[in-house]
Amino acid sequence: MVAGAADVLRRRGLHATSVRDLAKHSGSPLGSTYHYFPGGKTQLAAEAVRFADELTAAALADELQAGPVAGLRAFTAMWRSILVDSNFQAGCPVLAVSIEDQPEGNDEPRTAAAAAFDNWAGLLSEALRAHGAGADVAQQSATLIVASLEGAVAMCRADRSTDALDRTARALESVVQGVTAEDHATG
Amino acid sequence: MVAGAADVLRRRGLHATSVRDLAKHSGSPLGSTYHYFPGGKTQLAAEAVRFADELTAAALADELQAGPVAGLRAFTAMWRSILVDSNFQAGCPVLAVSIEDQPEGNDEPRTAAAAAFDNWAGLLSEALRAHGAGADVAQQSATLIVASLEGAVAMCRADRSTDALDRTARALESVVQGVTAEDHATG
Repeated sequence: MVAGAADVLRRRGLHATSVRDLAKHSGSPLGSTYHYFPGGKTQLAAEAVRFADELTAAALADELQAGPVAGLRAFTAMWRSILVDSNFQAGCPVLAVSIEDQPEGNDEPRTAAAAAFDNWAGLLSEALRAHGAGADVAQQSATLIVASLEGAVAMCRADRSTDALDRTARALESVVQGVTAEDHATG
Repeated sequence: MVAGAADVLRRRGLHATSVRDLAKHSGSPLGSTYHYFPGGKTQLAAEAVRFADELTAAALADELQAGPVAGLRAFTAMWRSILVDSNFQAGCPVLAVSIEDQPEGNDEPRTAAAAAFDNWAGLLSEALRAHGAGADVAQQSATLIVASLEGAVAMCRADRSTDALDRTARALESVVQGVTAEDHATG
């Protein structure tokens, strides 16, 4: 049910989605949604963001074992697949939640989104540091990677083409090569 | 009315916004909205995106006259003001429109969003080329700038802090300095 909710958020965002939509998309009866998520849409959205966070972080951590350039390429390839496989209808559920104003007191999805971005940037920063980047440069470059891939995915959805992602990926690869002293055999 | 619509889109996105919201926010009677925008919400959203595009492009073109580094700093400062002045409630209306799936045949806001991103990246690319970057690198770096500032603004909204934008800005400044042969006296 949480995976289904993440998929709806990728496509439509939080405001445009009702608990009914979330239940329908995940093939669950509406009653069971309220049973498992008594906090309703807000709670389910926060769980969906955490689900996307963990899935992405696990893949990214795994891919970064082959070095920051290889990790960057795999991370970019993941976003490209999401775009192409959905015919540019799906993007990032974490971004979708981030840009919608949230009712006072219901900021659990937003704080989960902030934690997800931090988590991914932290993994990238660690890999850059392990390959020779200084602490500040690693943190700045890692934030640049997360920010630009998120922005590029949105630009690709607007343009119905992967051009923005492809260009961003090439620019990021130069950045990563510039800030690391990575052995090219492992990158 | 178009400026008001752009402001609502910055905050809430398209799906979560009704024509009534747009009229209310812009202080216009609902009837006049339909009078001036017979295409309703879709048409008004597209106009709002074009309005944000033109306003941003005019400011960016002006700022880039002092060189790509100065232009980048002013562009970043503009986004920081939008975030801080709205207490992180407002972001980019172009991004908001880009990530929402649109009903078939109503893709005018989306194509206006794609044109806006292209327009801004084109201005940045031109400035980078004028300061020594090669054509491909200029295009890739310009796309990186637009993508990463858009993504960083969303990350800042999630985090209710300008950290992601500040880090991204520092990383971008290194990129711009690296790809241009800019005279430091003018940058």
